[in-house]
Amino acid sequence: MTATTTAPSGPTAPSPQRGSSLASTAEPRVDVAALAEQLLGRYATLRREARALTGRPEFQKIEGLPMAEHRERVLHQLRELAAHHDVLRAFPARLGGADDHGGSLARFEELVAGDPSLQIKAGVQWGLFASAILHLGTEHHHDTFLPAAMSVDMPGAFAMTETGHGSDVASIGTTAEYDRETQEFVIHTPFRAAWKDYLGNAALHGRAAVVFAQLVTAPEGKPRVNHGVHAFYVPIRDEDGAFLPGVGGEDDGFKGGLNGIDNGRLHFDHVRVPRTHLLNRYGDVAEDGTYTSPISSPGRRFFTMLGTLVQGRVSLDGAAVNASKIALAIAVRYANERRQFAGAGEDEVVLLDYQRHQRRLLPLLAETYASTFAHEELLAAFDEVFSGRNDTPETREDLETLAAALKSTSTWLAMRTVQECREACGGAGYLAENRLVGLHQDLDVYVTFEGDNTVLSQLVGKRLLGDFAKALKAGGAGDVARLVADKAVHRTLLVRAAQTIADVGDARRSAGQLRDEETQRELLTERVEVMVAELATALRPATKLPPAEAAALVNSHQHELIEAARAHAERVQWEAFTRGVHAATDPGTRQVLTWLRDLFGLTLVERHLAWYLVNGRLSAGRARTVSSYIDRLLVRLRPYAQDLVDGFGFAPEQLRAPIASGAEKERQDEARAYFRTERAAGRLAVPEKHVR
Amino acid sequence: MTATTTAPSGPTAPSPQRGSSLASTAEPRVDVAALAEQLLGRYATLRREARALTGRPEFQKIEGLPMAEHRERVLHQLRELAAHHDVLRAFPARLGGADDHGGSLARFEELVAGDPSLQIKAGVQWGLFASAILHLGTEHHHDTFLPAAMSVDMPGAFAMTETGHGSDVASIGTTAEYDRETQEFVIHTPFRAAWKDYLGNAALHGRAAVVFAQLVTAPEGKPRVNHGVHAFYVPIRDEDGAFLPGVGGEDDGFKGGLNGIDNGRLHFDHVRVPRTHLLNRYGDVAEDGTYTSPISSPGRRFFTMLGTLVQGRVSLDGAAVNASKIALAIAVRYANERRQFAGAGEDEVVLLDYQRHQRRLLPLLAETYASTFAHEELLAAFDEVFSGRNDTPETREDLETLAAALKSTSTWLAMRTVQECREACGGAGYLAENRLVGLHQDLDVYVTFEGDNTVLSQLVGKRLLGDFAKALKAGGAGDVARLVADKAVHRTLLVRAAQTIADVGDARRSAGQLRDEETQRELLTERVEVMVAELATALRPATKLPPAEAAALVNSHQHELIEAARAHAERVQWEAFTRGVHAATDPGTRQVLTWLRDLFGLTLVERHLAWYLVNGRLSAGRARTVSSYIDRLLVRLRPYAQDLVDGFGFAPEQLRAPIASGAEKERQDEARAYFRTERAAGRLAVPEKHVR
Repeated sequence: MTATTTAPSGPTAPSPQRGSSLASTAEPRVDVAALAEQLLGRYATLRREARALTGRPEFQKIEGLPMAEHRERVLHQLRELAAHHDVLRAFPARLGGADDHGGSLARFEELVAGDPSLQIKAGVQWGLFASAILHLGTEHHHDTFLPAAMSVDMPGAFAMTETGHGSDVASIGTTAEYDRETQEFVIHTPFRAAWKDYLGNAALHGRAAVVFAQLVTAPEGKPRVNHGVHAFYVPIRDEDGAFLPGVGGEDDGFKGGLNGIDNGRLHFDHVRVPRTHLLNRYGDVAEDGTYTSPISSPGRRFFTMLGTLVQGRVSLDGAAVNASKIALAIAVRYANERRQFAGAGEDEVVLLDYQRHQRRLLPLLAETYASTFAHEELLAAFDEVFSGRNDTPETREDLETLAAALKSTSTWLAMRTVQECREACGGAGYLAENRLVGLHQDLDVYVTFEGDNTVLSQLVGKRLLGDFAKALKAGGAGDVARLVADKAVHRTLLVRAAQTIADVGDARRSAGQLRDEETQRELLTERVEVMVAELATALRPATKLPPAEAAALVNSHQHELIEAARAHAERVQWEAFTRGVHAATDPGTRQVLTWLRDLFGLTLVERHLAWYLVNGRLSAGRARTVSSYIDRLLVRLRPYAQDLVDGFGFAPEQLRAPIASGAEKERQDEARAYFRTERAAGRLAVPEKHVR
Repeated sequence: MTATTTAPSGPTAPSPQRGSSLASTAEPRVDVAALAEQLLGRYATLRREARALTGRPEFQKIEGLPMAEHRERVLHQLRELAAHHDVLRAFPARLGGADDHGGSLARFEELVAGDPSLQIKAGVQWGLFASAILHLGTEHHHDTFLPAAMSVDMPGAFAMTETGHGSDVASIGTTAEYDRETQEFVIHTPFRAAWKDYLGNAALHGRAAVVFAQLVTAPEGKPRVNHGVHAFYVPIRDEDGAFLPGVGGEDDGFKGGLNGIDNGRLHFDHVRVPRTHLLNRYGDVAEDGTYTSPISSPGRRFFTMLGTLVQGRVSLDGAAVNASKIALAIAVRYANERRQFAGAGEDEVVLLDYQRHQRRLLPLLAETYASTFAHEELLAAFDEVFSGRNDTPETREDLETLAAALKSTSTWLAMRTVQECREACGGAGYLAENRLVGLHQDLDVYVTFEGDNTVLSQLVGKRLLGDFAKALKAGGAGDVARLVADKAVHRTLLVRAAQTIADVGDARRSAGQLRDEETQRELLTERVEVMVAELATALRPATKLPPAEAAALVNSHQHELIEAARAHAERVQWEAFTRGVHAATDPGTRQVLTWLRDLFGLTLVERHLAWYLVNGRLSAGRARTVSSYIDRLLVRLRPYAQDLVDGFGFAPEQLRAPIASGAEKERQDEARAYFRTERAAGRLAVPEKHVR
């Protein structure tokens, strides 16, 4: 399978819409095959293999399948993957893996094209359950538990979240108290809110679980100490699927999507497991009850243990970007073939020739490209750290911040993109066969699981504040800090605005400036810097306030904190996109990608235009040119829309939407041929208005 | 059932969150019962009856029910409604109805709380199929076809949309040619794109259809003339459910939602119906093939026939507002009970005390209130016209514009609201039992059916342009027109901006101005006026251009046209909200509603802040106060959030979400009690960090 065979219109076959009245003939051409190769990135081969799997009917979602059947189907798919396909690359070579962390995620991300339920069930089994054994356990656990977890002989749940605590893992209620007498841990659920909840594999298939609980222990004569959250390997069901003594649970039932996964609840009534079932890489309890850990700070230890979760966020970022790509490939193809309402000529107008339709789809296409390039960089950073090639506290922290920023941005983007594409396809978009509604339903939970996006954004915001404080100490961010700390700053900025306001100038020249890469960079970068600096200034008094007042002050800036984090993520995406543009070797492709990057940058500026105006970064005159320049970019990019979605490299068997199969064009052609024939034969009735 | 019994916290029982640190004790109180009564509006009694029905399990959606069972269930529910409940009010009294058009829609809108599939299936059967017989047919049709359509003895499809033509009904391909010999119409589908599609009742249950087709006839010796789209009553299945000869079709299959409705496709191969099956109120064919119509213009005739569709849009507006209310009632209740992350004190923080959570939910609450008041006015206008009390071409046109503006605004609002509520409830929001995902799936298609929102917005925009042109002729809109027509206008406006920019002033005073009702009105009104006037100016050359260039010019402003329409709808909503505030008699309630209306107005200003800045309507200094005033309004409104959703008057049996049942509070209380008890008994283990 090559990208060119998958593309309805490759570089040598001009897209039908090239004939559009909006396109001129002297325009650059996109090398679709080269573009597809660039977008597939460093793991192109693995991605192609995974996509080929999703092109096989046995790995594809059947829309509308009743829940029970869907769950069985996905379990079966999972076992097939484990038995016959290369899906265990992240595991140690000595156990049959390939120690390939980045490549493993790349493959995993592509499963979304088959069935997002399969992707997430694979994530539960290998990315969470087995991965916790790998990363939190030690050799004994690897030898004892990993093989069955990898082969899915032992389906497992990742029992971290509780009904009462999702994002705040440190506060979970489940306890694991060490019993010196029997050398066992007693896993216990003290109240209803401490039930484990929303766990994949918990409702039906799971026979074991990695259970997170507050580890309590006391050597003889010493007080009982809570050493915080640790992970335990706990069998939960026998081979017939019956709960083991002391274990109970409930089915979470039907969900908004991902109904191929059996999410459920678990609770434990003094369930005993051997001392050695503590996954003890970061904390251990000796026979006599003595606790030891290579990490002395309980806080740092907690975050280290949770650090393995980052791979889930990295892969969700990639999967979400893939979902956006699929949706756009469907909606753009349809928009290029569907006609509605008479135009100036004889034919009805192709949807994508409508300005509003371009406004709806093309900026999302630009954002999806930005997310694609940004994800590729995230995956590289992830592989650097997890391979051990560059694993330091700093690179880990950078990775976690980047993953939080991009996962939240791309999963929200997927929601917007899929929904806009669904609406842009009208009634056809509402049919499950055209995939868009299913993608929305399945991807929906990506924005709140594996780190709720709102919570992740705050982590990013706090990191930005921390970096700012460090830079301030080092004297680096001094200028910006002084600028915004000064009470007179707003007045200063306003004076600047008042000056630039006279600069109405020529719209075309202003647009020229906005097209400039450095101008875009400066606009996006300054916005983050000023937002962070203002926030730091506003929050500075918090350190001197009583806790309640300090909390109230911080809370009163929560919205701004999250907006600053999003501004940061947008800038990161823009930089990645720009590097992607420079990496394109074909001149025509690079030209079109530059326009698309400009559309992305200008879309961000337009979205935050009020900020730029209020803060004196753009004059009113120049601000006015932003939207008109976007309008011109849309006209310029419109003829390349098909090439740009073809560049995603999905084959018909991955898209699978009848409206993106050419059927619509066939129908349109048939209808037009009918009228031509009837008219020529004089068989068309005369319209009443022509009679009168 | 009264509103107070349904409210978890009525006016005499202070809401738990009243004790929130953000609320002061000297604040006004909301009379929840009176508020609920006001919101139920003129059809309060009918709405309460309909809600009571949706409170009965047999009329409620079962999430996850397989499609085939769901379809049968909804058909059964429909027949139950027809047999035992007052659902036929819109029909003539002489046939068992009540000639009550507004009341009928009010009842119908409430069905969404039971199962949106039931609402829409009812809409197909009575609002479209039977209603077409009523409004497009004459006495013969009423006598012959209406009784069975009303009783659902004859389930019917409304066969207007075709695979190839949705919004552009005038261009449908199905033909109905009159055969003088047999005095029959021959219904025919000439090509695949002319298949009728997406029709409720077509896949399975429908035994007849009102088929829209191009009417072709010719008296002897005259040319065959196409008199445009007309409606025909066409039997499609026999009593055993088998297609009649010449009729064929397909099942649309699984959809994004509304799977209790059997949507499908129909096609006709020279199917013959008697001449009298033409629903002939607006156009008739005599035995000899002569066509006559009381409306001479084919264009006006077409729009008159389609005019009955407006009731669908009116009722979708109401149903969408109800969906938003239900979603907010669930999410706000949960946000008032759910706690996450430690606060400054001992307890974890209630979600709704987080600023961002307020930012996410309260503006949507304000928009939903605005939509509620606007819908009540739309329903009144609808009843005026359809009752005949005030049925003129002008009132019809006004009604259609208002319905198009509000239906598109409220259905998009419902999508945003339901999704935000789902995300705000985290993993719990993704469980089908908590209703939010189901509401999103079912309501999704409301934004593209019964008039695609993008198309409806353009209708509104064109009406605004038409009104502007009329006013211009009459000399009324002269000032605005001159203002924007003048090439120097932008410079003028910018000079004004440069002047006001010095006016940084005191933020509190500026906010005071923004709170002023007249200021808000002026900001919202001026925006529409300027946008329309600018658009009119930009499009003026179109009349003098060749068709292709004119079309290109109009297309290059399509985005602005739609934005102007939305600005108009927002202003209409704001005015309705303001009238609603003035109608509230209880002073405390009126005060809180005023804040909520201010939040609505300021949210709109914030959303379009760049426009106000670029056009010199707000100085940068004042613009800065918009967001901070919104922040203050959120703090002010937060203690009333529960009252405001209680005012929607939904009982637990209509909300039905376990997370909005008090279960969350129970769990939180149990967990906190556990820790209190354990701590008091000295049984809590010491946190490690306290040991070191």
